[in-house]
Amino acid sequence: MTAVSEFDREIAVTGRADQPGTYDAELGQGWRIGGGVNGGLLLALAGHALRRELGPESANGMPGHPDPLAISAYYLSPGVPGPTELRTQVVRRGRGVSTGQVSVLQRDGDGEGAVLAERVRVLATYGDLALLDADASTSAVPPELPDPDACVSAAQAPPQFLKHASLLDRLDLRLDPATTGWAVGKPSGNGVIRGWLRLADGREPDPLMLLLAVDALPPVAFELGLPGWTPTLELTAHVRCRPAPGWLRVNLTSRTLSGGYLEEDAEVWDSAGRLVALSRQLARATSSRR
Amino acid sequence: MTAVSEFDREIAVTGRADQPGTYDAELGQGWRIGGGVNGGLLLALAGHALRRELGPESANGMPGHPDPLAISAYYLSPGVPGPTELRTQVVRRGRGVSTGQVSVLQRDGDGEGAVLAERVRVLATYGDLALLDADASTSAVPPELPDPDACVSAAQAPPQFLKHASLLDRLDLRLDPATTGWAVGKPSGNGVIRGWLRLADGREPDPLMLLLAVDALPPVAFELGLPGWTPTLELTAHVRCRPAPGWLRVNLTSRTLSGGYLEEDAEVWDSAGRLVALSRQLARATSSRR
Repeated sequence: MTAVSEFDREIAVTGRADQPGTYDAELGQGWRIGGGVNGGLLLALAGHALRRELGPESANGMPGHPDPLAISAYYLSPGVPGPTELRTQVVRRGRGVSTGQVSVLQRDGDGEGAVLAERVRVLATYGDLALLDADASTSAVPPELPDPDACVSAAQAPPQFLKHASLLDRLDLRLDPATTGWAVGKPSGNGVIRGWLRLADGREPDPLMLLLAVDALPPVAFELGLPGWTPTLELTAHVRCRPAPGWLRVNLTSRTLSGGYLEEDAEVWDSAGRLVALSRQLARATSSRR
Repeated sequence: MTAVSEFDREIAVTGRADQPGTYDAELGQGWRIGGGVNGGLLLALAGHALRRELGPESANGMPGHPDPLAISAYYLSPGVPGPTELRTQVVRRGRGVSTGQVSVLQRDGDGEGAVLAERVRVLATYGDLALLDADASTSAVPPELPDPDACVSAAQAPPQFLKHASLLDRLDLRLDPATTGWAVGKPSGNGVIRGWLRLADGREPDPLMLLLAVDALPPVAFELGLPGWTPTLELTAHVRCRPAPGWLRVNLTSRTLSGGYLEEDAEVWDSAGRLVALSRQLARATSSRR
């Protein structure tokens, strides 16, 4: 039996025979949050298309680069379930790393009035994490978390939140109760949300799944006392090593809200206690409640 | 008298009448560091071309967006002094923010063998910082620094370093002596470099100058005990408000070196004590000494 995971089915892309570098995908209903498809899922989808372009050895003998080392997404309009087109461009093939770009597009409207709208534009540099020096040193420390069973499951979220968050059915997310005051109207104001994360169907983490992980928790703005929707303008992630199987620990922090914008920093740690991904996003604080 | 500052002269761009969106610039000898032109200067130049595109009101009445809110640069090959071409693309014009892209290109080689090589590709979302809500709250604290006169001036750097760093003549840079152990072969290993920064000719900071500021200090890798050159793969900066005139304080930190890569985080504070810019870059640690 080779059951395909929900995540792999969702980020599947099919290359067009007549248009090299262009891929088709179909976004489902299962990854929605608030008004659109989760931004981390869109990033993983875009990252998958780039892996298809940059992962194999190039025609002129440059080595393949399957893993995103640094990837930046600029969000332009909310992604929705339905047909999706990905147009990639190879910016530079190199010996050690390669850079590519991809636009994620969907049709808005019907018939003659339909327009192809860009949802997100992504620029990324890929390498091969398997070939990198295994040495690592860090002064960062993994978040201290109660055991998963002592944490708050996303299934316990308020019904009015779950209604707009089919994404949460795809995840096994256990939040540290010290960081879930927002869910009962008592945000700590600390600007920290942390928890355990894995995919609900048991699909193990890999570099593409980490692109989902950095944007899969409730927005840290909630714990700052901002209950509104916080659309992401930009998110950049660094994948630092291939994650070990098992639970991930994700730590979100935000320090500065100014001019109506806040940054959200994510750190992702694997079950071996290694810092496997870092990200930062700039999001807009709005007054519209989720 | 309207003396043009060294910085403004360096980031000056001239639009091509016959090629809308394409600009010419001329990089000078004065902003070199290590093997190329400083990456922050290239980012400011790219940011200037995008300001030219996105700053004025659009043909269909969308408001102008002169300031980079989030800007990501993917470095492809080292920039060198000489003629430079910038090709911009407006990705999306919106009411609140607009997104654009720019490629910075230079000719490599002479005559028939010459090729136009991309130095850096930049994706950015612009807004109007003057229109943003002035409210700001942060749990970040500005770096504690001795007075500028009690700090180590860049002019005191080792001659073998200065020889390859004409950039330092453009800056008035005063490093906290607690973070300059690297300069005398005794790096602290703390992964912190901090100091005061302003332009040597007195040109006051603005959002474009902040794009230089986030990449103008010696690499924090030096203070981690890595004396080699650390080429930037990717740098993303968020400009959070327009800086007040006067000294900037810049705080660089790095926490994780893994697989031969490290991240460098920069925070920039203005003379009014506000966090005006944040950046993170992914850089490669090399064994080749500066």
